[in-house]
Amino acid sequence: MRAIEIVGIAETKFGKAEGSYRELAVQAAQAALEDAGAHPAQVEALFLGTFSPGTFIKQEHVAPLIATELGLDNVPSTRLENACASGSTAFVSGLMAIAAGAYDAVLIVGAEKMTATPIGETTSILAEAADWENESSVGLTFPGAYALMARAYMHKYGKDRAFLDAVAIKNHHNAMGNPYAQFHREITREDIAKSVMIADPLNLYDCSPVSDGAAAVLLVASDVADRFDKPGVRVLGFGQASDSLALYKRDNLTSLPAAQRAAERAYKMAGVGVDDIDFAEVHDCFTIAEVMATEDLGFFGKGEGSDAVLAGATGRDGKMPINPSGGLKAKGHPVGATGVSQIVESSFQLRGEAGERQIDGAEIGLTHNVGGSGATCVVTILGKAE
Amino acid sequence: MRAIEIVGIAETKFGKAEGSYRELAVQAAQAALEDAGAHPAQVEALFLGTFSPGTFIKQEHVAPLIATELGLDNVPSTRLENACASGSTAFVSGLMAIAAGAYDAVLIVGAEKMTATPIGETTSILAEAADWENESSVGLTFPGAYALMARAYMHKYGKDRAFLDAVAIKNHHNAMGNPYAQFHREITREDIAKSVMIADPLNLYDCSPVSDGAAAVLLVASDVADRFDKPGVRVLGFGQASDSLALYKRDNLTSLPAAQRAAERAYKMAGVGVDDIDFAEVHDCFTIAEVMATEDLGFFGKGEGSDAVLAGATGRDGKMPINPSGGLKAKGHPVGATGVSQIVESSFQLRGEAGERQIDGAEIGLTHNVGGSGATCVVTILGKAE
Repeated sequence: MRAIEIVGIAETKFGKAEGSYRELAVQAAQAALEDAGAHPAQVEALFLGTFSPGTFIKQEHVAPLIATELGLDNVPSTRLENACASGSTAFVSGLMAIAAGAYDAVLIVGAEKMTATPIGETTSILAEAADWENESSVGLTFPGAYALMARAYMHKYGKDRAFLDAVAIKNHHNAMGNPYAQFHREITREDIAKSVMIADPLNLYDCSPVSDGAAAVLLVASDVADRFDKPGVRVLGFGQASDSLALYKRDNLTSLPAAQRAAERAYKMAGVGVDDIDFAEVHDCFTIAEVMATEDLGFFGKGEGSDAVLAGATGRDGKMPINPSGGLKAKGHPVGATGVSQIVESSFQLRGEAGERQIDGAEIGLTHNVGGSGATCVVTILGKAE
Repeated sequence: MRAIEIVGIAETKFGKAEGSYRELAVQAAQAALEDAGAHPAQVEALFLGTFSPGTFIKQEHVAPLIATELGLDNVPSTRLENACASGSTAFVSGLMAIAAGAYDAVLIVGAEKMTATPIGETTSILAEAADWENESSVGLTFPGAYALMARAYMHKYGKDRAFLDAVAIKNHHNAMGNPYAQFHREITREDIAKSVMIADPLNLYDCSPVSDGAAAVLLVASDVADRFDKPGVRVLGFGQASDSLALYKRDNLTSLPAAQRAAERAYKMAGVGVDDIDFAEVHDCFTIAEVMATEDLGFFGKGEGSDAVLAGATGRDGKMPINPSGGLKAKGHPVGATGVSQIVESSFQLRGEAGERQIDGAEIGLTHNVGGSGATCVVTILGKAE
């Protein structure tokens, strides 16, 4: 495939934002162009990943809306949706279009505005990413689905919830070093024990928050990368896979086949193995999800991801740093922005610009973005800017 | 670009359907595979165009849902949305992915289930494809937007509404020969004059209906086309462009710049001119839209499309047959399905299988699919199966 690089990156601070959906998307996109030293006229197409603006803010058809606000002149603009993996799906679409030779430079934006919606409605809207007809409509919302996974994991491997605490504590700690994160607050096991139960065994600190935010990357063919200011982060490989939305159709609840398949494809395309990965941004929508991710990606054996986090192996100074950004748990999870944000965060690391959260000597990073409870997964493998 | 062909096509009968969203999508997809003599295991990715299932049926994340129902084994599946151009946007995404060399065979599906929603809500949902913050929220729904265009056109070129009548009468007549069409009923100028006013000057017969339906195509690289039963319809070119959602930002209301730009790109890529086109399926969401389309595509001069339809030039036996299928007006308009259906209908023509609606000697056909009031346009140019 044609060599492709990321030459511009930006994201907004996640959390409850003043700005509207379009303001957040435009802010991230303009900052990514500025980062690259690029002019809007150099952008040949826009790919916008977003989950459900139709329900959150009564606005569909958002791709040309944002393209126009950015002053992109009649360029093709396309909205992608794959639930919480919408952002990385947009990234993959941009890759395909450049690889096809249709464009040399495209802008990928992920955005969501969630906090303007009453919280009860938000849970219902998010549940539209699961199988509404068969599961959501009878009460299986996402905290419930991941609670089933957590219970299955704890039962299968004989674990108590200490490892879930460890994920939340680590990610809140990591977010302290991330100026874009929603939370800047260390938490303790006592805080977690005292917090409200959401869906047994998951309590408030096991769940990623409701967030507003946007992230953007300028993606270009390597053969034109010298037109831009920043050293390009190389796209070494990617993989995408799907699975049943409904949990009742799955063989087991302790791993996500779509994640395993997406990872296999990404490793194969990149020509690298698990041992080559220096850090990963994974989809910890709930604490249990991070542990399953580290096993699905091959970093740890089945049932061993829980021990690894307790042993500190996934800390910023550990053998395999996971979510140095703070992850969805503490950085925040504006659904459509998340996949793009993972790529932005990885690119900061691979440019050596991650500040306090910098992983020393980071040369290859992986992102893992999940839609729903595993019905979509996109994995990317990015390489150091040269 | 890599040569690409359409080897399988199918659509459901449009209208108020018994089936659910997933049943309609699966029905069209399976029929397209059957048409090609293909097995689900030959499908490497799914691209699903759909407008707003999150609001119509409380179900987002529909791509892996449909992939699973079809028995596609963990293949990448992606949902595309660009309002009423969602279907053709999915088609373009499939083209890009094959051209990139990522896949040899992909399934494109377009679907929408609209009739399960109360009609008042439907108008509001459709208005989310326009600029909600600046126009829809203050009452400018789509019939209103196109009524402004019709008034502007009639004023600019000194026309009365006879040409709008002619579009509706022709398309209802054409649909008589289309077994998949929602309406099988000839209409007269008297019927139109007696019908209810929707937004002056547009009355009921100027508007496409609310519909359920799905359409699907199996798209393959030409180098693997001999694995399938049917002669491939060749993709000669395509173009996509965008524009402002809000009408107040447009310079004029009598043509759509996105359509003109998309058409330029498609003609250039295909290496053909206006005179090479034997027929076109265009986006007549309202009667005025068909006339504007025939001018934007270059078939007629500015202000002359209205005379052309009155003179019979766009009839099935005319110089430039437009919407031999009956168009959105009479075939129906299940939003996400429409763009794919235009490609299915054109493929029937180019395979010589269009029955009563067959255009003699059809060798090159064009499709024109618009999102919103022109914020997205996708044009495809397809060539005869050899």
